[in-house]
Amino acid sequence: MAGNSFGQVFRITTFGESHGPALGVIIDGVTPGVELDLTAIQAEMDRRRPGQSKITTQRKETDQVEILSGLFEGRTTGAPLAMLIRNADARPGDYERIKDLFRPGHADYTYFKKYGLRDWRGGGRSSARTTAACVAAGAVARQLLARRGVTIVAYTLRAGGVACKTIDLNQIEMNPMRAPDAAAATAMIERVEQARSNGDSIGGIIECCVTGVPVGLGEPVFDKLDADLAKAVVSIPAVKGIEFGAGFAAADMTGTTHNDPMSPEGHLSNHAGGILGGISNGEEILFRAVIKPTSSISSEQKTIDVDGRPALIRTKGRHDPCLCPRAVPVIEAMTALVLEDYFKRQETVHG
Amino acid sequence: MAGNSFGQVFRITTFGESHGPALGVIIDGVTPGVELDLTAIQAEMDRRRPGQSKITTQRKETDQVEILSGLFEGRTTGAPLAMLIRNADARPGDYERIKDLFRPGHADYTYFKKYGLRDWRGGGRSSARTTAACVAAGAVARQLLARRGVTIVAYTLRAGGVACKTIDLNQIEMNPMRAPDAAAATAMIERVEQARSNGDSIGGIIECCVTGVPVGLGEPVFDKLDADLAKAVVSIPAVKGIEFGAGFAAADMTGTTHNDPMSPEGHLSNHAGGILGGISNGEEILFRAVIKPTSSISSEQKTIDVDGRPALIRTKGRHDPCLCPRAVPVIEAMTALVLEDYFKRQETVHG
Amino acid sequence: MAGNSFGQVFRITTFGESHGPALGVIIDGVTPGVELDLTAIQAEMDRRRPGQSKITTQRKETDQVEILSGLFEGRTTGAPLAMLIRNADARPGDYERIKDLFRPGHADYTYFKKYGLRDWRGGGRSSARTTAACVAAGAVARQLLARRGVTIVAYTLRAGGVACKTIDLNQIEMNPMRAPDAAAATAMIERVEQARSNGDSIGGIIECCVTGVPVGLGEPVFDKLDADLAKAVVSIPAVKGIEFGAGFAAADMTGTTHNDPMSPEGHLSNHAGGILGGISNGEEILFRAVIKPTSSISSEQKTIDVDGRPALIRTKGRHDPCLCPRAVPVIEAMTALVLEDYFKRQETVHG
Amino acid sequence: MAGNSFGQVFRITTFGESHGPALGVIIDGVTPGVELDLTAIQAEMDRRRPGQSKITTQRKETDQVEILSGLFEGRTTGAPLAMLIRNADARPGDYERIKDLFRPGHADYTYFKKYGLRDWRGGGRSSARTTAACVAAGAVARQLLARRGVTIVAYTLRAGGVACKTIDLNQIEMNPMRAPDAAAATAMIERVEQARSNGDSIGGIIECCVTGVPVGLGEPVFDKLDADLAKAVVSIPAVKGIEFGAGFAAADMTGTTHNDPMSPEGHLSNHAGGILGGISNGEEILFRAVIKPTSSISSEQKTIDVDGRPALIRTKGRHDPCLCPRAVPVIEAMTALVLEDYFKRQETVHG
Repeated sequence: MAGNSFGQVFRITTFGESHGPALGVIIDGVTPGVELDLTAIQAEMDRRRPGQSKITTQRKETDQVEILSGLFEGRTTGAPLAMLIRNADARPGDYERIKDLFRPGHADYTYFKKYGLRDWRGGGRSSARTTAACVAAGAVARQLLARRGVTIVAYTLRAGGVACKTIDLNQIEMNPMRAPDAAAATAMIERVEQARSNGDSIGGIIECCVTGVPVGLGEPVFDKLDADLAKAVVSIPAVKGIEFGAGFAAADMTGTTHNDPMSPEGHLSNHAGGILGGISNGEEILFRAVIKPTSSISSEQKTIDVDGRPALIRTKGRHDPCLCPRAVPVIEAMTALVLEDYFKRQETVHG
Repeated sequence: MAGNSFGQVFRITTFGESHGPALGVIIDGVTPGVELDLTAIQAEMDRRRPGQSKITTQRKETDQVEILSGLFEGRTTGAPLAMLIRNADARPGDYERIKDLFRPGHADYTYFKKYGLRDWRGGGRSSARTTAACVAAGAVARQLLARRGVTIVAYTLRAGGVACKTIDLNQIEMNPMRAPDAAAATAMIERVEQARSNGDSIGGIIECCVTGVPVGLGEPVFDKLDADLAKAVVSIPAVKGIEFGAGFAAADMTGTTHNDPMSPEGHLSNHAGGILGGISNGEEILFRAVIKPTSSISSEQKTIDVDGRPALIRTKGRHDPCLCPRAVPVIEAMTALVLEDYFKRQETVHG
Repeated sequence: MAGNSFGQVFRITTFGESHGPALGVIIDGVTPGVELDLTAIQAEMDRRRPGQSKITTQRKETDQVEILSGLFEGRTTGAPLAMLIRNADARPGDYERIKDLFRPGHADYTYFKKYGLRDWRGGGRSSARTTAACVAAGAVARQLLARRGVTIVAYTLRAGGVACKTIDLNQIEMNPMRAPDAAAATAMIERVEQARSNGDSIGGIIECCVTGVPVGLGEPVFDKLDADLAKAVVSIPAVKGIEFGAGFAAADMTGTTHNDPMSPEGHLSNHAGGILGGISNGEEILFRAVIKPTSSISSEQKTIDVDGRPALIRTKGRHDPCLCPRAVPVIEAMTALVLEDYFKRQETVHG
Repeated sequence: MAGNSFGQVFRITTFGESHGPALGVIIDGVTPGVELDLTAIQAEMDRRRPGQSKITTQRKETDQVEILSGLFEGRTTGAPLAMLIRNADARPGDYERIKDLFRPGHADYTYFKKYGLRDWRGGGRSSARTTAACVAAGAVARQLLARRGVTIVAYTLRAGGVACKTIDLNQIEMNPMRAPDAAAATAMIERVEQARSNGDSIGGIIECCVTGVPVGLGEPVFDKLDADLAKAVVSIPAVKGIEFGAGFAAADMTGTTHNDPMSPEGHLSNHAGGILGGISNGEEILFRAVIKPTSSISSEQKTIDVDGRPALIRTKGRHDPCLCPRAVPVIEAMTALVLEDYFKRQETVHG
């Protein structure tokens, strides 16, 4: 109820703050008897971890995952799988200087009002660092989904006003923007560096596509597959919107253009983004999420202090000038968590 | 788990099919001792009901709500509030002709594959008629929220390519499009009628703004207020995306322009849409949802039958050529359900 | 959260008060494609309904079930199954005389303090009449369980100090006590009639045995099968305790006598009551519940009124002098609801 | 859904196996701003830990709790409180000898059939060692409840056929049986030692009483306070039954003797055990649980191996010949978890 769990059958519960001792996650509902590839889990952590390239924050965290339970002789047992990630480079002291100020665009003010106290250590529980636990859990989900034939790929489609013109999935991990278009990536990186040198930051759009999902995942009428994907993705820090298939462009389309005609070989287009009536229709699941520009910027901004008095603030420290590259694996992870959960939910329908 | 409940504390469970005997909802977690205005509930039903104007479906339903429990001497008791809405103008026979065909853009195919059977009576449980139960429950939530000082208003911001240029809330209920701009409404209606005469349909965008929400609603890290609003709204039939505040435009903004500076009087802008870190920040909550063009169109479309053979289909019958006008009260209802739930959840934080 | 739902996958939500317009239940998570025997549902209602024999309350209710959704052409669709039971013989006026007094042994006082108001119409939501909805849902669960080979039988093992000496399941429905021993039944009925003529009531013990449950149902560590059966059964009005297998007698046993040795043909005894470590072990599931003497008695008792002043009360009206006969089908129903849910939960383990 | 979480608002999720690297718990829904007494948490761990007296198992675990999150400057923050307990004296090798045999009375067989694999390391997830995490969480709940004026005390009421004749709460922690009667404790210890020397074990009954609970906790109709206490307590390993107030003795009582009359000063007796209609009535909450004799005994027993062949087994190793002394703090902990949760749930009723 307090919001730190996600999923129904394949369900995660996370804990940890940005500058506390550790982060972690318990996954309940893991299929027993599955051999886990721990190297693959760590590889996902590496895709999200700070300091992975010169355009991300320089905080040094190796994000080593220790598995505390649920694994025996290399295989899952069906018991909860607990994963622990120690914070190695926490520097709460960095934030002491601004402990009485609310950083604009951050959750400082809302947490303070909600809980009646201030955990000023770099956002505490509201920090995007909490997504490390999601990526660890998502990496497990991915392995389970791979056995089902499901593949999830996300990438930076647009950033700082630069849009990809081609989608070459092989390019994604070859540039630090995780853009599927090498030329666009180069232009994006330029925008990122320019923003950083201006004490500013930029936003972007991430697209995610999922192949291999059979027809039938999703539960009417509230737990629609797109509804829960929307929840999962919007819960990621900095995401301010999501659209499926044709998305907002559908506003200006007509039924004859938007409807996806059917043939014995499948749908003849995919404006629906692979989901009809909240249930997967066998086509590629396709959605896009918008990432706001990083709130932590070193330019001076107007704010107030904990006593409500006006103040000026500069958020110095180690921050990403564009969140897209590191948000890509987070979006994939949240997508994986939703899908593994819905596969299991579907088992109950006829069971 | 099977998806027909929504909310945690203020929680609804709905039932009913488009052409079955009845629809209904049980609300659990209603504050006891509150005098309910039954006329106001019915008024909300009237805003959603079919046949309310010449640009909506002509199915005749008065959608009378019968309260079966949870009310004593005009006041809520804290026991579950059950509301029943009989279907009066169900005509399952209308669909018998196409009972073996899947309507493109509908959930016919996905339900068939998911459940292994076909309830061909106008979509059955996947029909947007199920939102009648949500509106009934939402009407109760609205009354509870009104006591908390919260007001929710949604309107058609764009339809058929026509955008509102002004936002005059007084205009909304004065035109059948529920647009806040009279001139735009007239142009929209023209597009609707043109689409209908073409055997086609149009889409649009609905904007929703909520005033009076205090700072502090929303639960990190997964049950963020925007995450659950996203789930609630995307679960509405025909919604294909949602964005908060600046929304997708944030992709091209920078931190210095997107961050909302703070002053002792509040935030100096509202690009965040009233939510920071998943928690309400005291500003107006503002989001937009895209509504796809109605899938039921009388133009001929390619499809397949239940045996997978190619076929052609025309979806005749009584349908809305644009779903926006009737989706407006549904979006308000789902928003109300989320907010009343989160007000109650916040009570548990310090309690 | 407010307590009117039960189960995780096969999940019921109930509503209704003893003297309100109607009672009912929504079942979510019903396997689609199953032909429902409506006569069998009604037969279960008849086993619980008032006025079924001269030793039960004489309130006249036929408890006719109307199915409002989830059924099409006689088969379940996978959509929520809603069932409605109108109250026909509600007489709230009977209670007006004692509307300001709290009946000892009833929930009058606790509800008043909890909700801050008094629904004095025969207990309102706290009445055992609410179990009608559970029996309706349980009757559906039973049919689903029958397809799995599961049989549930409960009976009055003891009442008014009279214990059954033999267990002949064929006897149960042949006497109004639902006792499996005809001679004991006769003696019990004598005690019931004597209690009634004294303005008093008696208690008893109900035993329930379930056959056909395979090894493996139950979820560690909190959702153990016995833990959830305990919750289900103790939630039934008037139940004050439950024990499994050897039960409280285990306190004086030793490990060598209580442990059930195993053989290739199964366990050689069943002191565990068919559940080990919270998971069914393939043996008969066996438990007993104690039913307190009916709280509604016509003898004069000390109480207080809503203003806290001392008063005397006699609870006249139509009441059961012993609740066992009608509690038997309720215990069976709650057991069925738990089991059908756990069968479905087990599907998710390997799915 | 997979059963490793408990509670709704104040909700715990646990992990860990008896002979794995660690055990732990995440508590979600902790009131923020509360100073936690870490010494008091450790003291509760000490009451449960193995090796605390000569009549318990001699496994050496200090059960040190490390708090990983949710605490800042000594106070709770409202973020999830994660607690880690490393296993220090795990000896999985002790079990290698019987890895292919099912221990009678244990969950070995049921887990094997449920999950399709065998974690033979001392019961794995089914071990009572998992209750360490519950006691850690319960210790937090107790501190929160103390602020509400609630006190929970449990004790061994009966063991090995010896019953306490007096209830002196001051005696409980003065003898290793945790019995409130010194003379009875001495006799019980004799039975324990005798059982151990016979390669056998004994059972008992634990009584728990809770003072300071106001009227109004508990949610009708399924989440009754006694129903959830029953679930909580029956979920504890070795518990085979629970009874409230007069309990099973109510079977032979009449309404005039069982009903608790009311006066302006409160109820004049407490046969109900402090709960009416599932809601606390302001009196002491009183229940008893039966603890079966320890299943691990060194006497030879008939069993089968993983291939279903008959075998003989002796369960050697480090075991408690009577579980009561260490089950006392576990019952208190589970009771505390239920109550803190229900206090918070009550906040939502009028909020």
